[in-house]
Amino acid sequence: MDKIRIGIVGYGNIGKSVELAIQQNTDMAPAVILTRRPPQSVKAQTPGLQVDLIDEASKYKDQVDVAILCGGSARDLPEQGPMMAAIFNTVDSYDTHALIPEYFNKLDRISRQAGKIAIISTGWDPGLFSLLRVIENSVLPAGSDYTFWGPGVSQGHSDAIREIKGVKDARQYTIPIEKAVEKVRSGQQPQLSTREKHIRDAYVVAEEGADLERIRKEIQNMPYYFADYETKVTFISQEEMDRKHSQMPHGGFVMRNGRTAEGYRHVIEFSLKLDSNPAFTASVLLAYARAAYRMNREGQTGAKTVFDIPAAYLSPLSAEELRKEML
Amino acid sequence: MDKIRIGIVGYGNIGKSVELAIQQNTDMAPAVILTRRPPQSVKAQTPGLQVDLIDEASKYKDQVDVAILCGGSARDLPEQGPMMAAIFNTVDSYDTHALIPEYFNKLDRISRQAGKIAIISTGWDPGLFSLLRVIENSVLPAGSDYTFWGPGVSQGHSDAIREIKGVKDARQYTIPIEKAVEKVRSGQQPQLSTREKHIRDAYVVAEEGADLERIRKEIQNMPYYFADYETKVTFISQEEMDRKHSQMPHGGFVMRNGRTAEGYRHVIEFSLKLDSNPAFTASVLLAYARAAYRMNREGQTGAKTVFDIPAAYLSPLSAEELRKEML
Repeated sequence: MDKIRIGIVGYGNIGKSVELAIQQNTDMAPAVILTRRPPQSVKAQTPGLQVDLIDEASKYKDQVDVAILCGGSARDLPEQGPMMAAIFNTVDSYDTHALIPEYFNKLDRISRQAGKIAIISTGWDPGLFSLLRVIENSVLPAGSDYTFWGPGVSQGHSDAIREIKGVKDARQYTIPIEKAVEKVRSGQQPQLSTREKHIRDAYVVAEEGADLERIRKEIQNMPYYFADYETKVTFISQEEMDRKHSQMPHGGFVMRNGRTAEGYRHVIEFSLKLDSNPAFTASVLLAYARAAYRMNREGQTGAKTVFDIPAAYLSPLSAEELRKEML
Repeated sequence: MDKIRIGIVGYGNIGKSVELAIQQNTDMAPAVILTRRPPQSVKAQTPGLQVDLIDEASKYKDQVDVAILCGGSARDLPEQGPMMAAIFNTVDSYDTHALIPEYFNKLDRISRQAGKIAIISTGWDPGLFSLLRVIENSVLPAGSDYTFWGPGVSQGHSDAIREIKGVKDARQYTIPIEKAVEKVRSGQQPQLSTREKHIRDAYVVAEEGADLERIRKEIQNMPYYFADYETKVTFISQEEMDRKHSQMPHGGFVMRNGRTAEGYRHVIEFSLKLDSNPAFTASVLLAYARAAYRMNREGQTGAKTVFDIPAAYLSPLSAEELRKEML
């Protein structure tokens, strides 16, 4: 069987994880790393894997079956998504929620014209969590949805703290409040405020001589990011930061509590506990790359989301095997 | 908008729940109840809903968009599945695992010829649990699967006890062993024997003068059903049985523990806590009825399983709404 040839676009945390995750998918092989950095400065983990500039992407049109876009949603994907969708089947983890419809429409037009598939906004949230929200809502029409994130590192909140004057380094953990989780799990349908759902737990390395009280207050009062939460701030040394906070664990729960017509209560829960957010995200992106490849081979084109993709397309097993072994 | 007209085939626990669950799906309406019993003996819960014999099904060809087959897998579906798939789009919860491939092929041929869709083996297991197994395996290729059932009533095991001489009534609860669940949840990949995963907890009403010790032993030594488990047997009165054990709660967990290429551990869990097994099953069947209706309107025919159906087809929301609100 021909292997699915994967192009890796962007070589940060996710890109590196995608490259490694390909080893666990025997029907796939890495084809090229495309980067904005000077290619000779990038050291691939796969012996002999070619590295080139993103701007040279079209040279690889016939060598790549699916390009995984590993850049960020703020700066990279708005540019790289449309550019790559004109050349390759693509999979990305675009997560700027408010702009998803616009991004979808743009990539839909471009990928249709190119005769390609563009799967957007996958990974785990958006991605698996979104998929489960739709399944849960469809099978329990009357009920309430709850999403809890963490325990895990929020990159965005960590970045926000780092921009405060006097902060050298920061790491922010989002932690679901156990009492709220238990209330939902018990089948109740509580109204939960932002403050009742998550705690924000920040570890900060301050510059020498910085006013720690001012930094603490600036964090705790930061609108949108922290002001609505109980936020703990702990100052630590850079050495402790490097030693204890270099991992990127994450996870969360998507729950729906509902009642069927007779008044019976039902609780559905989907949960993830991840040692590494980028490693798991990369693994999800590859399953959707398999789907992109297969759907395109069947002649399908245009932008797709997790809602449009039958689970059979994610699996390396055949339809017969799935029915025999997994149903 | 035209409502999806639902035919209810079989009017036991599931059929009655389907009829009620339609009230929670504003895009659906009940069209007819088809039963093997004398129609005049069946009292529908919906005022004015027509009731007729299953053998008269073809009369309702143009009044029913999707027929939900609510019969059992042992005796009803092997006959009713093929018969109904020749007339209607169908949805069923066929769960005789070993015979699923054969049942699929038969319904595939018949429904294709009829220009209809036949969604087989849905509900929650097979159904949602199967779907989650495939998703979990696809996104974590290296790992171990664990399914726990319960706490909940197992109809099959209750029936098996009732066939023992001297037993008047019986109810068997399957209970996952918390220690095993916690071990899996912690991210370990234990090898678990049958006995280490579930306890079987049986409540039995004996006939007057029956030999309780003999009954207890016959239950505990029954091959396949009980011999491989720790089985508790408690004798109670019919009055206590009726008062305390008339409900049909169920649920369970589908978990996958895996490692990505770097060695990071990840735990995925999908769980259900259901006050009523038939009520929840009915609600799932209706979501898949929506999918059957839509896929058939697009011109698709043949047998399908949960693996073949994009989540978007289950939801009453439009694709645009899903992207805007649920992604």
